[in-house]
Amino acid sequence: MNPLIDGLQYANWSEKIFRQMRAGGVDAVHVTITYHESFRETVLNIERWNRWFERYPDLIFQGFTAADIEIARQTGRSAIFFGSQNPSCIEDDIGLVEVLHRLGMRFMQLTYNNQSLLATGCYEAEDGGLSRMGREVVREMNRVGMVVDMSHSGERSTLEAIEHSTRPIAITHANPARWHPARRNKTDTVLKALAESGGMLGLSLYPHHLKGGSQCSLAEFCDMAARAVDVMGAGNVGIGSDLCQDQPDSIVEWMRVGRWTKVIDYGEGSADAPGFPPMPDWFGDNRDFGNIAEGLKNRGMSEAEVAGIMGGNWMRFYADSFGPEGAV
Amino acid sequence: MNPLIDGLQYANWSEKIFRQMRAGGVDAVHVTITYHESFRETVLNIERWNRWFERYPDLIFQGFTAADIEIARQTGRSAIFFGSQNPSCIEDDIGLVEVLHRLGMRFMQLTYNNQSLLATGCYEAEDGGLSRMGREVVREMNRVGMVVDMSHSGERSTLEAIEHSTRPIAITHANPARWHPARRNKTDTVLKALAESGGMLGLSLYPHHLKGGSQCSLAEFCDMAARAVDVMGAGNVGIGSDLCQDQPDSIVEWMRVGRWTKVIDYGEGSADAPGFPPMPDWFGDNRDFGNIAEGLKNRGMSEAEVAGIMGGNWMRFYADSFGPEGAV
Repeated sequence: MNPLIDGLQYANWSEKIFRQMRAGGVDAVHVTITYHESFRETVLNIERWNRWFERYPDLIFQGFTAADIEIARQTGRSAIFFGSQNPSCIEDDIGLVEVLHRLGMRFMQLTYNNQSLLATGCYEAEDGGLSRMGREVVREMNRVGMVVDMSHSGERSTLEAIEHSTRPIAITHANPARWHPARRNKTDTVLKALAESGGMLGLSLYPHHLKGGSQCSLAEFCDMAARAVDVMGAGNVGIGSDLCQDQPDSIVEWMRVGRWTKVIDYGEGSADAPGFPPMPDWFGDNRDFGNIAEGLKNRGMSEAEVAGIMGGNWMRFYADSFGPEGAV
Repeated sequence: MNPLIDGLQYANWSEKIFRQMRAGGVDAVHVTITYHESFRETVLNIERWNRWFERYPDLIFQGFTAADIEIARQTGRSAIFFGSQNPSCIEDDIGLVEVLHRLGMRFMQLTYNNQSLLATGCYEAEDGGLSRMGREVVREMNRVGMVVDMSHSGERSTLEAIEHSTRPIAITHANPARWHPARRNKTDTVLKALAESGGMLGLSLYPHHLKGGSQCSLAEFCDMAARAVDVMGAGNVGIGSDLCQDQPDSIVEWMRVGRWTKVIDYGEGSADAPGFPPMPDWFGDNRDFGNIAEGLKNRGMSEAEVAGIMGGNWMRFYADSFGPEGAV
């Protein structure tokens, strides 16, 4: 079995996109369901997903364990795994970790660009590492089986999360900073510590994370992937496309600004280019994963390496990560 | 296998009570986790239960399916199934039915004494039956596998719920009104309609539901049980003790008054006796179910009938009720 798994998407979901998942043979997707939303607002987002699951049962269903990916393959559907890009959804209540895990949340970022109750994001000038609550919440996430995701975190917070967590963590969507020094990309120090602890990096297709942006070629992307494998090993790299298909620009503003400021923060964009950048022409939607697999093969990777990056590595990581600690 | 299942308790939970469950060989209990609480407050109550599950894993665990009762027996623990005595927990949001079902809620009363958004309780002067939202919510409860409980509902609402529900419903804790005409007890009309639709009655030990109150004898209770079986058949009757062990009187006030009135409503009590009445001396806590089984045998019931009432009937009902519609 060579599953195809995408480590992160946040699309403007629709029947069209679910059908594209099927057309692309995507077995599982970790989808972002919440950014700055409160717990109750996050539950409303879950309710929206429940309506999609009810309406499109032949295309998608909610995934809770890695075994659901096998079911997805057997039944020709895509398993949808929930995640949060910020800890707003647990508010100031550690008990909500287990509640949201029960509702299917399998990933939570400790920060989204800014300082949170738990840690500090990559856009802050100062990063104090894990907070007191942050250490407790990581312990609780470890206990129930919710993956710590540090994609948008600062370097010190990320290294401390790797160190403090008793289970491997993930950076679901980012690229090596040595290739493209965007603030969201990760240094070799982080990538090595991540790999040594058994963690996963999901390579991002989001243009701001790509050298050359929307113009980045498939060959360049695949060369970057090969170098990430050199640093981390072939078993610790996957895809986290960060596909934000069909989203209006108002969404990227919510992602960046939430309710934390009254002025516009452009994040990775700028006043001249405030919206979502266009995707590279070789990866526009869920039907294009085959291009990446082909590109990795052309770059000289073995069949086993390509299969791992395209889903096998996430599959193993999901199997090890989503159950209670000690049960796997 | 002859499981011992209690169809309703709302105790002031503690290690002592969990140990009494084990001492009494109680395999499963439907526990009330919320009355007038909002969704968020209900989630806080779930979090409290999660702490008990974490703290006493050798005594209790959360039950989700009837199969968990088998696990409870194999591992010498009690399976705890959640329920709500009022629909406050879903607020005005039908999507919360599925969310709470995912969190383990397996029973929900459509009303608690008063008129609700869904139906009308047994203390209202007028009972208009199921409301528009009530019909939609019953349909949704049927779909996901949450049992409609009409223990505190008015007669018309109860009959309409039985009629409208596509799956058998329950009256988890009440007795026949013909035996003791308390407002909470049920007419033969209701009991017959309930049984004909495959529903369950849980016989209550709460003194206000007993002829003679706290002085009701075991023989009288068991005679009442035999008459309930005459009306409903031996397969549709179980126990729903309504045990409110160790609760302070402030709790019965919350149950009756919630936030809906500024004056005291005494419900089944009175100004002279506003608190919890003392339990009959033959049923004080979870160690006393054996007395009831013995009493039913002495009343002349067969071993199979007694086994059904003490848990086998609930077991079958749980197995048929807790999964998605059409899946069982």
